[in-house]
Amino acid sequence: MIEVVDNQYPEKVYTVNIEFPEFTCVCPKTGLPDFATIKIEYVPGKKLVELKSLKLYFISYRNVGAFHEHVINKILDDFVAACQPRRASIVGEFGVRGGIRTTVSAAYPSK
Amino acid sequence: MIEVVDNQYPEKVYTVNIEFPEFTCVCPKTGLPDFATIKIEYVPGKKLVELKSLKLYFISYRNVGAFHEHVINKILDDFVAACQPRRASIVGEFGVRGGIRTTVSAAYPSK
Amino acid sequence: MIEVVDNQYPEKVYTVNIEFPEFTCVCPKTGLPDFATIKIEYVPGKKLVELKSLKLYFISYRNVGAFHEHVINKILDDFVAACQPRRASIVGEFGVRGGIRTTVSAAYPSK
Amino acid sequence: MIEVVDNQYPEKVYTVNIEFPEFTCVCPKTGLPDFATIKIEYVPGKKLVELKSLKLYFISYRNVGAFHEHVINKILDDFVAACQPRRASIVGEFGVRGGIRTTVSAAYPSK
Amino acid sequence: MIEVVDNQYPEKVYTVNIEFPEFTCVCPKTGLPDFATIKIEYVPGKKLVELKSLKLYFISYRNVGAFHEHVINKILDDFVAACQPRRASIVGEFGVRGGIRTTVSAAYPSK
Amino acid sequence: MIEVVDNQYPEKVYTVNIEFPEFTCVCPKTGLPDFATIKIEYVPGKKLVELKSLKLYFISYRNVGAFHEHVINKILDDFVAACQPRRASIVGEFGVRGGIRTTVSAAYPSK
Amino acid sequence: MIEVVDNQYPEKVYTVNIEFPEFTCVCPKTGLPDFATIKIEYVPGKKLVELKSLKLYFISYRNVGAFHEHVINKILDDFVAACQPRRASIVGEFGVRGGIRTTVSAAYPSK
Amino acid sequence: MIEVVDNQYPEKVYTVNIEFPEFTCVCPKTGLPDFATIKIEYVPGKKLVELKSLKLYFISYRNVGAFHEHVINKILDDFVAACQPRRASIVGEFGVRGGIRTTVSAAYPSK
Amino acid sequence: MIEVVDNQYPEKVYTVNIEFPEFTCVCPKTGLPDFATIKIEYVPGKKLVELKSLKLYFISYRNVGAFHEHVINKILDDFVAACQPRRASIVGEFGVRGGIRTTVSAAYPSK
Amino acid sequence: MIEVVDNQYPEKVYTVNIEFPEFTCVCPKTGLPDFATIKIEYVPGKKLVELKSLKLYFISYRNVGAFHEHVINKILDDFVAACQPRRASIVGEFGVRGGIRTTVSAAYPSK
Repeated sequence: MIEVVDNQYPEKVYTVNIEFPEFTCVCPKTGLPDFATIKIEYVPGKKLVELKSLKLYFISYRNVGAFHEHVINKILDDFVAACQPRRASIVGEFGVRGGIRTTVSAAYPSK
Repeated sequence: MIEVVDNQYPEKVYTVNIEFPEFTCVCPKTGLPDFATIKIEYVPGKKLVELKSLKLYFISYRNVGAFHEHVINKILDDFVAACQPRRASIVGEFGVRGGIRTTVSAAYPSK
Repeated sequence: MIEVVDNQYPEKVYTVNIEFPEFTCVCPKTGLPDFATIKIEYVPGKKLVELKSLKLYFISYRNVGAFHEHVINKILDDFVAACQPRRASIVGEFGVRGGIRTTVSAAYPSK
Repeated sequence: MIEVVDNQYPEKVYTVNIEFPEFTCVCPKTGLPDFATIKIEYVPGKKLVELKSLKLYFISYRNVGAFHEHVINKILDDFVAACQPRRASIVGEFGVRGGIRTTVSAAYPSK
Repeated sequence: MIEVVDNQYPEKVYTVNIEFPEFTCVCPKTGLPDFATIKIEYVPGKKLVELKSLKLYFISYRNVGAFHEHVINKILDDFVAACQPRRASIVGEFGVRGGIRTTVSAAYPSK
Repeated sequence: MIEVVDNQYPEKVYTVNIEFPEFTCVCPKTGLPDFATIKIEYVPGKKLVELKSLKLYFISYRNVGAFHEHVINKILDDFVAACQPRRASIVGEFGVRGGIRTTVSAAYPSK
Repeated sequence: MIEVVDNQYPEKVYTVNIEFPEFTCVCPKTGLPDFATIKIEYVPGKKLVELKSLKLYFISYRNVGAFHEHVINKILDDFVAACQPRRASIVGEFGVRGGIRTTVSAAYPSK
Repeated sequence: MIEVVDNQYPEKVYTVNIEFPEFTCVCPKTGLPDFATIKIEYVPGKKLVELKSLKLYFISYRNVGAFHEHVINKILDDFVAACQPRRASIVGEFGVRGGIRTTVSAAYPSK
Repeated sequence: MIEVVDNQYPEKVYTVNIEFPEFTCVCPKTGLPDFATIKIEYVPGKKLVELKSLKLYFISYRNVGAFHEHVINKILDDFVAACQPRRASIVGEFGVRGGIRTTVSAAYPSK
Repeated sequence: MIEVVDNQYPEKVYTVNIEFPEFTCVCPKTGLPDFATIKIEYVPGKKLVELKSLKLYFISYRNVGAFHEHVINKILDDFVAACQPRRASIVGEFGVRGGIRTTVSAAYPSK
C-alpha cells in the first residue's frame, strides 16, 4: 500500500524526515478515538517513499483498533518492507489520555 | 498495583515515554501538598505497563508524606518490579518551594 | 477561613492579581482528582486578603468533590465575603479530561 | 445527544470555556479526513453542558462529510438547543489544506 | 477567477479566517521575489469563497511585479467582488527587505 | 530622590514605558527577600524621569520591609510627586511565594 | 531625506506597519551606543513612504547623540512632514541600560 | 553561478551557517509551487561563498520542477563544486503538503 | 551553614537538580546589586542537601561583594564540602550589565 | 585593548559564557551597517577578561568595514591574545541580509 519511487542519489547517505500530525486510530478497549503525531526519519536505499501513498496508508488506520506501542512497531515494519531503507526510525506522540501523555519510539535495524 | 500487558514486539528494542503532569504528594515536614510532573522512559521487556493502573498508582501518593529524592527512587523501584524492563529512567520535576525548583532523576540499571 | 489585613491605601482604586497553579479537588462522579490553576483579580476595599490563609483555603479543597463550574462560583463567594472588595473576578483553568480542557470564569458583582 | 445538568448558580452571569483539540470529520469533496480544534464559550442559563456527552457528540462527526463553515454553525445550533445558554460562541480552527489554514467563528445570538 | 459556493447559513453573521503563508510576487523595481503571509477575515453574505480557487488566485501572482501596499488592496478588491461579503479585511505580512519588515492591512468597507 | 530632566516635547501627549526586572525588598513578616519586576507607564508633563536616579530609587528598597500592595502604591506616589506626569500607571509582578504569584497594579489619577 | 511615492489607493483608509530592528544612535551623556527597534504604523494619505529612503534616514542617526524620548518624537515629526499621513504612530523599544528597559510611543495627531 | 571570495583564514577550521527561508520551486507532478527553508553549514577551505550570488542561485529554482529529495542533493553538489569546502551539510525544511511536513538532510562528504 | 539529611538510596547513582532564580549579591567595583539564577546539579553520596538551609545560604550573599566568576566557584566549594556528592556542577546566569550577559559554569570534580 | 584581571581559581577548569547582542560594524562593499549577537565561551587560564573593556573593544568595530567570516576570526584572535584561555569559542549571529541569515563559529585551539 505504501508506494515508492526511484532514489536518484542511491549512493548518497542522506536523511528524510516526515511528520504527519493527523494520525488517528481507535482504542481497542474503549472504542474511543486516539490521536497522534507520527514522525519518521529514514536514510533511503534505492527507493524513496511516495508521500501521497504514505498519507493514504496513515489514513487507513482511522477505524482500526490498536495499542500505542503496537501500532508504532507495525507502521515501522510496513515502512521498512515498502522502501527497504538503510536505516529508519519512528516516533508516535499520542494525545493525553487519563492525564498521561505517551510517546513510542522504534528504530530499524533494532538497536 | 501497577498492572502489565503482553508486549507483542518483545524482540524489538524500542522506547516508551510516559508523562504525568498531575502528581501530588505531601511534604513530610510541613504537611503541605507538593506537586510534580513525572516522566518515565523505558525499553520494554516481555511486558508493557498498563496506563490506567499506572495512573491509579500515581494517585495513591496523594496523601502520602515523602521527600522528593526518595519518592522518585521508590516509584522507579516499583515500576521496574512490575514490568521488568530492559532499561528505565524517571524524572520528577517538582513545583517551586521557597523560591527553589527541584528535579530528581534516576535510572535502572543504576549508572 | 480566608483572613484579611488592613489596606493602607483604601481610597485608591488599584488591582491585585493572584495566581495559584496548584489547586486540586476531586471529581464527584469518578472520585478521581482534578487539577486547576486559579486566578483571582480584585480591587480591594478596606481589606487585603492575607495570602497564607488564602493558600490554606485553597488546600482545604484537596479531598472535596466538586464540579468545575460550581467550585469556582463557591470560591468567588467565599472570597468576596472575606474581604468585601470593590470588584473581584476569578478564572479556573482545569486540566484536560477526556480530551476536553475547561475554563470557568465568574465576576463580582455579577455582570 | 448533548446532555445537560442543573446549573447551581443560575442567577450568576458567568462563563465556561471548553476546548476540544481532537475534532475530525471528512471532506465532502475528497473523502479525506479534516481535523480541527473546537473552542466553545458560553454563559450558562439554567443548565450546564455535561462534558462526557459533549465529547461523544463531537466524536459522532468522525465519518460525517461536512464543509468547515457549515459544520461549525451546525454544532453551535445543536449546542444552543441542548443547553439554552444566555450567550454562546464557537471557533473551529482547521488544519492546513492546500497551504491554507481556515478558522470559522460563530455566535449566539447572531451579532 | 475566485470561485464561490452557496452559504447555507446566510442569515447568520459569522466569521471565516483564511491564512495563506506561501504568497509570493516580484518586486517591480529589482525583479527579485517577495514573500508574504496573507490573512483574510470575512463575514460571508450569500456566498462562501471556494478555497482551492482562492489558492490558485494567490498563485497567479507568482511572476507579477507589485508593490506591497498596492497588491494587498488589489486582492481585497478582487475578493470582495467575488463573494460580496458583509465585511472583509486583509493583512499581508511581508518578509524582511533591507532590514525592514512591512505589514499592510486593509478593510471593506473602508473604515 | 527621583530626578527629572526637561521634556522637549511638553505639548505632545506621548507615552514612556519603563521595565525594571531587578526590584527586591524584604518581607516584613519573615525578613526573607522578595523579588519583583516593576513596570511603569507614564505620559510626561513638563518633566521626564531621569533613569539612573530612578534605578537608584528602586535599589533603595533593597533592605526595606514592605507588603506587595503597599510598596507599589508608595512607588507610584513618589513617581508622580517627582515628575508630575499627565497620567501614570505601575505594575509590580512579584515572584512565587507559597505557590502563589501576586501582581499589583495602580494608576494615577486613581480610576 | 525620507522620499515618497504615489499611493494608488488614496481614497482607501488602510494601514501600513513598518518594523526596523536595527536602529542605533549614541547616548548624549556617555557617548555609548544605544539600540532600538522602531515600529511605525500609518494610514497613508496621497503618498506612501519609500522604504529604502526610510532605511537611510534611520541609518543617519548612527552617530547622533539623542535621548530616547526626544529621538522618537523627532522621527515622528520627520515622518509626518515627509508623507502627510492621515494618522501615524511610532514605538521605539530600546535595549536594557542599567537594568532598565525603556519604550517610547508617540502618535500623530497627538491624542 | 555560485561565486566565491578568498578565505582570509584558510588554515582555521571554522564554521559558517547560512539560512534562506525563501526557497521556492515547483512540484514536478502537480505544477504547484513548493516552499522551503534551506540551511547550509560548511567549514570553508580556501574559498568563502559569496552570499549575493548564492541568493541568485537559490532564486534560479523559482520555476524549476524538482522533487524534495533530489533538489537538496543537487544544491549540495553545486555548493561543494563551487567552494570546495572541508565539510558541508544542507537541510531543506519543506512546507506542509497533504498534511505531511518533509525535511531532507544531506552532507559532504557523504557519511 | 548548608545542612544535610540522610540519603535513603545511597547505593543508587541518581541526580538532583536545584534551580534558584532569586540570587543576588553586590558588584565589588560599583556597589550596585547583581542578580542571577543559580542552577546546581549533583549526584548525592550519603547525604542530601536540605533545601531550606540552602536557600538561607544563598540569601547570605545579599550584601556581599563578589565577582561573577569567583562567587560561582565559592558556592560550588561550599556545596561540595557540605554534602560530599559523587559529582556536582553549578551554573550562574547573571543579568545583563553594560549590554553583556554572563554565565559561569563549574563542576566537581574539576574536568 | 581587552583588559584582564586575575583568576582566583586558576587551577579549576570552568567555563564563562559572554553574550553581547549589540555588535555592529559596516559592510565593506555597501557601507551599510551590519548587526550581530556575539557569543563567547572560554575556559579561563590565569586571567579573566574584564567585561567593561570587552564592551569597549566590541564598540570599537562600530565604523569598521569587515566581512562576517573575517571579523569573527579577528575577534577570537584578539580575545585569545588578551587572556590566554585554555579554550575559547565564538559565535557571531548576523542579521538577515538579502533574505539570508548568516552565523559564523570559530574555536581556539582550531579543531
